Amino acid sequence: MKILVGSDLGYQVNGPATLILNVQPAETPRQRILRETLTITPEGTRTEHWTVPATGNRYLRVHAQAGTSLHIHHEAEVELDAHVADPGEVTQLAPAELPPEVLPHLWPSRFCESDRLERLALREFCDAPPGHARVTAVCNWVHDRITYLRGASSPTTTATDTLLSGAGVCRDFAHLSVALCRALGIPTRFVSAHAPGLVPPDFHAVFEAFLGGKWWLFDATRQASPDVLVRIGQGRDAAEAAFAEIHGAATPTTMSIRAEVLEGPDVGRGLRTTQAVADVAEAP
Amino acid sequence: MKILVGSDLGYQVNGPATLILNVQPAETPRQRILRETLTITPEGTRTEHWTVPATGNRYLRVHAQAGTSLHIHHEAEVELDAHVADPGEVTQLAPAELPPEVLPHLWPSRFCESDRLERLALREFCDAPPGHARVTAVCNWVHDRITYLRGASSPTTTATDTLLSGAGVCRDFAHLSVALCRALGIPTRFVSAHAPGLVPPDFHAVFEAFLGGKWWLFDATRQASPDVLVRIGQGRDAAEAAFAEIHGAATPTTMSIRAEVLEGPDVGRGLRTTQAVADVAEAP
Amino acid sequence: MKILVGSDLGYQVNGPATLILNVQPAETPRQRILRETLTITPEGTRTEHWTVPATGNRYLRVHAQAGTSLHIHHEAEVELDAHVADPGEVTQLAPAELPPEVLPHLWPSRFCESDRLERLALREFCDAPPGHARVTAVCNWVHDRITYLRGASSPTTTATDTLLSGAGVCRDFAHLSVALCRALGIPTRFVSAHAPGLVPPDFHAVFEAFLGGKWWLFDATRQASPDVLVRIGQGRDAAEAAFAEIHGAATPTTMSIRAEVLEGPDVGRGLRTTQAVADVAEAP
Amino acid sequence: MKILVGSDLGYQVNGPATLILNVQPAETPRQRILRETLTITPEGTRTEHWTVPATGNRYLRVHAQAGTSLHIHHEAEVELDAHVADPGEVTQLAPAELPPEVLPHLWPSRFCESDRLERLALREFCDAPPGHARVTAVCNWVHDRITYLRGASSPTTTATDTLLSGAGVCRDFAHLSVALCRALGIPTRFVSAHAPGLVPPDFHAVFEAFLGGKWWLFDATRQASPDVLVRIGQGRDAAEAAFAEIHGAATPTTMSIRAEVLEGPDVGRGLRTTQAVADVAEAP
Repeated sequence: MKILVGSDLGYQVNGPATLILNVQPAETPRQRILRETLTITPEGTRTEHWTVPATGNRYLRVHAQAGTSLHIHHEAEVELDAHVADPGEVTQLAPAELPPEVLPHLWPSRFCESDRLERLALREFCDAPPGHARVTAVCNWVHDRITYLRGASSPTTTATDTLLSGAGVCRDFAHLSVALCRALGIPTRFVSAHAPGLVPPDFHAVFEAFLGGKWWLFDATRQASPDVLVRIGQGRDAAEAAFAEIHGAATPTTMSIRAEVLEGPDVGRGLRTTQAVADVAEAP
Repeated sequence: MKILVGSDLGYQVNGPATLILNVQPAETPRQRILRETLTITPEGTRTEHWTVPATGNRYLRVHAQAGTSLHIHHEAEVELDAHVADPGEVTQLAPAELPPEVLPHLWPSRFCESDRLERLALREFCDAPPGHARVTAVCNWVHDRITYLRGASSPTTTATDTLLSGAGVCRDFAHLSVALCRALGIPTRFVSAHAPGLVPPDFHAVFEAFLGGKWWLFDATRQASPDVLVRIGQGRDAAEAAFAEIHGAATPTTMSIRAEVLEGPDVGRGLRTTQAVADVAEAP
Repeated sequence: MKILVGSDLGYQVNGPATLILNVQPAETPRQRILRETLTITPEGTRTEHWTVPATGNRYLRVHAQAGTSLHIHHEAEVELDAHVADPGEVTQLAPAELPPEVLPHLWPSRFCESDRLERLALREFCDAPPGHARVTAVCNWVHDRITYLRGASSPTTTATDTLLSGAGVCRDFAHLSVALCRALGIPTRFVSAHAPGLVPPDFHAVFEAFLGGKWWLFDATRQASPDVLVRIGQGRDAAEAAFAEIHGAATPTTMSIRAEVLEGPDVGRGLRTTQAVADVAEAP
Repeated sequence: MKILVGSDLGYQVNGPATLILNVQPAETPRQRILRETLTITPEGTRTEHWTVPATGNRYLRVHAQAGTSLHIHHEAEVELDAHVADPGEVTQLAPAELPPEVLPHLWPSRFCESDRLERLALREFCDAPPGHARVTAVCNWVHDRITYLRGASSPTTTATDTLLSGAGVCRDFAHLSVALCRALGIPTRFVSAHAPGLVPPDFHAVFEAFLGGKWWLFDATRQASPDVLVRIGQGRDAAEAAFAEIHGAATPTTMSIRAEVLEGPDVGRGLRTTQAVADVAEAP
């Protein structure tokens, strides 16, 4: 499957500023970048690039000059080969069996206070069968209790805030799901992505759970099809997988995102199941 | 019905201290005090008494002297005549119909952040029939989700803390129930009480909802029978109905509480229904 | 001193709605209403009026009809005779000396979590002389640490939120000051008011501290002169002194406020001292 | 300098349980382990060991058997060669200059909500000279405002909780300092350690700031001398550097810690400066 993704980000720079962007898709065995363009204006703006080995996250540090209008244009054609499996065969590992490198994904994080939700999570999900079905139960629970509402949350909103307020955006759905899964002893991580079919087009946030030796994708908002998500970044929550960190006097002015399936299945709303979906992308 | 209630409170006073106690039963048309003893040692300790007309709360201010061991012994025999009605006939008033003096009981308060729970409350309880049944649904919801656990909360624990932690004591059950009812537009207040049959004996906290022109008692812990509760104080939450406020250098040392039915029904655990109970005591 | 105050409030009513408004000035021995107009359109809208004896707050309940555009126009001419005293003579009472009816203003409330700030308040203010000077020290501390910034807070923002975020509006300045004073054992209450000279014109929020037997006005924002404030409502915090409570499907559309000194001192910015001011209005 | 460190941890295991312990000192170029003993009873208990390359943290996973009394005895002799420099020469790097691998230590984390404290931190510390002096100013600020008090905090207490409550233990001092430094753009991490001279002996928590290309140690509690700290683990906060994570039915029963300087300077209280100390240990 081929997917075209792109982003145009504009900033007004009123003083010295450093931006750290994570907007380029990760390269993984199942996500190949066929071609990619990155254009930064004004010309001559100093930049640095690096990839974090442990996560595959690709960062761009932009040293913006005061008094400029900064513009970052990115476009890439990506070939996806999602690994799909039968949810019934995706089992859950006990803490005793988890590989050491996965254990940090059981820890609470800034926006996912799993340590405060253990009793609630056990009570709500003890009857769901362990494995993929239990994470799907978490997604369904979150989907049924949280209203998707732009403006309902802020950059400091956490999973427990969202549980109480009952409303949020994709980031909040992911945080609450992640927190509940960790409270159940299931390693989970936050994933930022391009999602074809999103209305209106925007960056998307979903999450992955480590089950049976692999990381499996879930989207509690039910707005995207996991098998066509183009992975950008990952981290334990949005604090570790931000699209853009701004240090200094730069202010966002414009943002425009695109994600289109060039070859592959139609991703109209009909394709998304009303259950959190079992299609699966293997992590790096 | 005749009930004997009593409390023995001891304090070590290491410096000048003022205590404000609300441990004596309220006098209401349906709660008569037959006899009452209040003894404070050391003799000569200066005290003041007053009753707040709006609530019937009886306060005792004790001016404790540094270097003493303060002891307050209270005992009273109370005649109760609880008003009992058919829950099905206890209906809910719209905000447009509520008497003005009841409206403050719709406001959020220190420990009952109803303003943060509106969406959640509407989603969880919109299907329960309005009136006594809806408040009972709130009690059942709280009872099913919160574990009664001594030490699970602190004096600053609020209703939202309890919702997240999933554990608490009688005060926390009352706060969460009150907050959910207010979020549903039902005026509610916190009530401190003596409760015969409590194991171990202790002060108890329940709540009242204003329905159909009266205040009706509810106990989400299901540990007490509303028809044998001896009301002590009321307020919008525990901040407004504390048994004891200490200003200065006094430290609690001992506390012993008693509440026994002298004449009337047996209040063994069997008598408490597994639904939040519909027996009803009229408020002052 | 004569002051003209007024408010125009518009609401779009899409379904049955009840509004409870507290926009009319209180009548107190030192605040006389010379003339007053209240016009509600559409004509024939059902309303009720009442005054709460304990606070003097004047409420208006409006039973709005679905499908209407509701408009409330209020205007009043008020004569003020603020009681002014020498701050140095305004002393602080110990909890042992406070009149019983004032004690509830020591309790924490929804937006003023004084119970969480005791240690901080004692540490910061133990060196300030008790009495008016200590409350002025609280105002100065708040003024120096909180940036006045529209949009920095929301209706659920509390005193501790404001202390952490370092920004807020008049309501937040009042809440934080109130919380710190209560943590110091000084009874305080929230006051909503008309404030001539406010830029842009708006409802204002200040607070009062009970010192030496009277309630004294303070404004930690330093935007208003206490001696020309026209008191509207009072309560332990904004939850108890809201301008407007909306129950049902009404949405605010327009709001316009006015407050002008007709006879009396100029209230240009120069008149406000840079210390929290010692002018004083006696409470009802 | 030679230091002897040790810990004895006991657990009652009532059901299947997995413990993940991080109690063994890290091996770094400046911290050599001369000899080490680790004894786990009952004999035959299955264990695994691993070291995380990015942090040097050494983990021990213990697969405890139900019905046993688990005991972990650890002892090590460590040679320390702390790198000490003149604080005045330790400068601060701008976000534009920080090495990429350090940037995650600017992000907020579970217990260090630096994103909520930016305005407060800038206001309080803008006058302190950047570099080591600014971090020392943070330590002094925390030391002056937080009372060291056992029992004042719980495992879910965060930096903002501690700022408000004004009391905590070593972990809370470290969290608040870390959060304030990150809000100032200074990368910081949490460090668990053995600290000779601690009264009573216990595990200790301090923090490191990345300044001028190195990580420098700070202890806002002023209870330990940074130059004799034996580093155990590091992470962005205590969620990432816990001594023990328990999964399953194990309950701590006993804990005893020791840390003694065998060869080297006396670490009596007199040695600790009243400023946060400038002695420095190089990180791995």
